[in-house]
Amino acid sequence: MQGIFITLEGPDGAGKTSVIQQLVPLLKEKSKVEIVVTREPGGIEIAEKIRQLILDPKNTDMDIRTEALLYAAARRQHLIQKILPALHQGNIVLCDRFVDSSLAYQGAGRKIGVEEVAKINEFATQGVQPGTTLYLNVDSDTGLGRIKKGRKVAEQDRLDIEKPSFHKRVQKEYLVLASEHPERIITIDAHVSLDQVVQSCYDSIIKKYPDYFA
Amino acid sequence: MQGIFITLEGPDGAGKTSVIQQLVPLLKEKSKVEIVVTREPGGIEIAEKIRQLILDPKNTDMDIRTEALLYAAARRQHLIQKILPALHQGNIVLCDRFVDSSLAYQGAGRKIGVEEVAKINEFATQGVQPGTTLYLNVDSDTGLGRIKKGRKVAEQDRLDIEKPSFHKRVQKEYLVLASEHPERIITIDAHVSLDQVVQSCYDSIIKKYPDYFA
Repeated sequence: MQGIFITLEGPDGAGKTSVIQQLVPLLKEKSKVEIVVTREPGGIEIAEKIRQLILDPKNTDMDIRTEALLYAAARRQHLIQKILPALHQGNIVLCDRFVDSSLAYQGAGRKIGVEEVAKINEFATQGVQPGTTLYLNVDSDTGLGRIKKGRKVAEQDRLDIEKPSFHKRVQKEYLVLASEHPERIITIDAHVSLDQVVQSCYDSIIKKYPDYFA
Repeated sequence: MQGIFITLEGPDGAGKTSVIQQLVPLLKEKSKVEIVVTREPGGIEIAEKIRQLILDPKNTDMDIRTEALLYAAARRQHLIQKILPALHQGNIVLCDRFVDSSLAYQGAGRKIGVEEVAKINEFATQGVQPGTTLYLNVDSDTGLGRIKKGRKVAEQDRLDIEKPSFHKRVQKEYLVLASEHPERIITIDAHVSLDQVVQSCYDSIIKKYPDYFA
């Protein structure tokens, strides 16, 4: 694998989407290689179909373990058809959410158990891990406040409307993961201004991979 | 769990479908409880949708691990919505294929690895196992011969047209599983006549669960 695999993670309201929008042009300006920005299902047809199944509000009877297996299946296909080919071409792949999201949301948030969810994701990824994960840390009160302020009720998806205790468990698990994988996960304080968060992400990447940037 | 969970397993051409057709009326005649006959996806809407994804010939790019995760997801949903409720009502559930099929077909046949496939199925079943598995043993030459004789080419599904070596690995893994789980798996010789196979299955069930039959 010659490319660089970078993931962005964080609880709802951490500002991932806004950060990516500002960060990518900055990186592209300096990068010597192509930057591929993606998120599951990433336009991969099979993964899109799996995602539709998960998000279809008619599937109210879906068991949480069925859901976790479907997320792992969509992840596998996206990895095989999009991420790995891009990495093999030497690109920088910036992926919005990956395994850590399942550990935090399904494992801790939905209480399936982090180790259990890790097992099916190891099956899906066969040990492929991001070289760097930028974790945008925001406490759950701040995160939830931002969501409520920014979106109309109809736009809030299923995860957004989970109880506050759910979001607390998600954030707590992210912090545990960050402490367990200091070589991979860089924690970025996301309580500060968007510009500051973008700058921190940018600096972290340039510092870790100087050879890839002019 | 008060009911009895029985599965039927075997390589292609073992005659499962014919056996079930003859076996079920015999069991119903003697049974004190209801007999629920099912197979994945078993009419469970979410599992049906997952199955459609797996079997859609347009999804030629589907990775074998994606496929294995989807089978596990469909299994989970079928277990939760159909098998467990039937068992909790005290019924006898007779299920055509279960985890052993994934171990034999995906694990050994497709060479993902039996232990790997077992992991995601443990996640799906949380340790729920059949009390009894009737394994219809037929060598792969005999099995394949029966398939070719009985079906037109157009009717032969994707698994049927795999190479002979695939079917050999499947049968071999079934034999390994039977030797590893003698308390659960009853091996029935399926080279003999259909009537004899049905009789062996019938006798095995009545003998193991005498209290459930008049």
